Amino acid sequence: MFHERPADLSPADLDALRAAAFAVADAARAACLPHFRAAGLTAEDKGGPGWFDPVTVADREAEAAMREVLGRLRPGDAILGEEQGTSRGASGRETGLSWVLDPIDGTRGFMAGTPTWGVLVALNDGARPVLGVIDQPFTGERFWGVSHGTRRGAEWTRGADARPLRTRPCAGLASATLFTTFPEVGTAAERAGFEAVRDRARLARYGMDCYAYALIAAGSVDLVIEAGLAAYDVQALIPVIEGAGGVITDWRGGDCQRGGRVLAAGDPRTHAEALAILSQAP
Amino acid sequence: MFHERPADLSPADLDALRAAAFAVADAARAACLPHFRAAGLTAEDKGGPGWFDPVTVADREAEAAMREVLGRLRPGDAILGEEQGTSRGASGRETGLSWVLDPIDGTRGFMAGTPTWGVLVALNDGARPVLGVIDQPFTGERFWGVSHGTRRGAEWTRGADARPLRTRPCAGLASATLFTTFPEVGTAAERAGFEAVRDRARLARYGMDCYAYALIAAGSVDLVIEAGLAAYDVQALIPVIEGAGGVITDWRGGDCQRGGRVLAAGDPRTHAEALAILSQAP
Repeated sequence: MFHERPADLSPADLDALRAAAFAVADAARAACLPHFRAAGLTAEDKGGPGWFDPVTVADREAEAAMREVLGRLRPGDAILGEEQGTSRGASGRETGLSWVLDPIDGTRGFMAGTPTWGVLVALNDGARPVLGVIDQPFTGERFWGVSHGTRRGAEWTRGADARPLRTRPCAGLASATLFTTFPEVGTAAERAGFEAVRDRARLARYGMDCYAYALIAAGSVDLVIEAGLAAYDVQALIPVIEGAGGVITDWRGGDCQRGGRVLAAGDPRTHAEALAILSQAP
Repeated sequence: MFHERPADLSPADLDALRAAAFAVADAARAACLPHFRAAGLTAEDKGGPGWFDPVTVADREAEAAMREVLGRLRPGDAILGEEQGTSRGASGRETGLSWVLDPIDGTRGFMAGTPTWGVLVALNDGARPVLGVIDQPFTGERFWGVSHGTRRGAEWTRGADARPLRTRPCAGLASATLFTTFPEVGTAAERAGFEAVRDRARLARYGMDCYAYALIAAGSVDLVIEAGLAAYDVQALIPVIEGAGGVITDWRGGDCQRGGRVLAAGDPRTHAEALAILSQAP
């Protein structure tokens, strides 16, 4: 789905794209929040046997709102969204840029009323996601980042407050706080890989969805390990983690932008130590 | 530690006690928040071998602030706090009332930067906790309740917003959303009991600390199962859950105010179905 050659983005381009990404996240916020903890919110199950994969009216309305904003502000860009799939930019004016959208990452958390889900917005330049937003509408927090170029960096905002995001040092697993969303992680092999890392970590916690990655960028979590992700689950995380000084790859150390198995760390030393274990997973 | 005979609390007494409880929670908020996600927050480990039980300067400063407020507003009441233990009311003017305080329930979550921890304030009338507050300083939410008498009820507040808390109907485990903080739960027998319930529930989630109980009261979670709790972990939860229409007991259906194994549900039918399984745990 992604072009082979990256578009050439100037700092001014990136500033305009950031403004568009924020408008998209604002629209998703406004669409999601009225449904959060609302009585009678129900989910359809779009999963297969044994796998509850809920989608709610909030996911659908939020993605529609996000696409409406992009159609207006960025008519030549392509869109990949969790609920409505891929759409190409308007014919004849294609930019080579793609927006990758997850209206509610962590629908289970959304349905349970926990402030752990997020709205994910990524801009892919044809080679990699270069701009990402992790937005938590209920707490009012926005974690966003740019992964390369002169605008490389990451920032946390909440209303009028803003603060640079910077990962913290962590010398290795023995002092690391590790997160994953589900204790079962994925397949039996993936679970075993996670548990081998967990057994060397200082502290393991569960249940945070995309918020755990945001907390790596914020410097209060050291490591997140997950498996079975889709492209729209991970693309927005990459510029936030990298812009804050962290490392995010698959379990072999390669590019994780298409999803699958993901390993994110605030400190390259912790990443390397976890990678040495996870890369053994069949 | 608790008196045998309950003090006789009028509605006016309860209103005054609620105001004192809110002043205590406000003081804890002000003490905790500057340390939340602050660079360099470190923990001492007060646990035993194999059990990381962190305490931070935030826990200590918050409990001191809470005790200072109670010393001023409620000098005749006793206090049980997680960090400083039990203190009796000023000699000669004892009221028979006890405050049970957990300055930060979920210190691991606090240290990891997740908004899942809470400040817990309970008032025990000598027989049971009758007034409870679950406060989440970062989101600005306060869940509070009264478990009996004419003031029985529960409410959510956030800044100027307020809303009654009411559990939701849940016909049984097959439609239940279940939380526990740690997947290991407690002993091997306790873990097995939890897993037997989990295997019949619709959805299991982890990592929420006291916030999961607040979400039962808010009607977005159906069940919480935990083990190994202390009195200060559970007393504030009881009036919130009961005031919102839920049920909270130990794993045999008895009083859980001293901690240990706790089963909380929004709907008595779900509670009964889980209890039938958990009461088999040795």
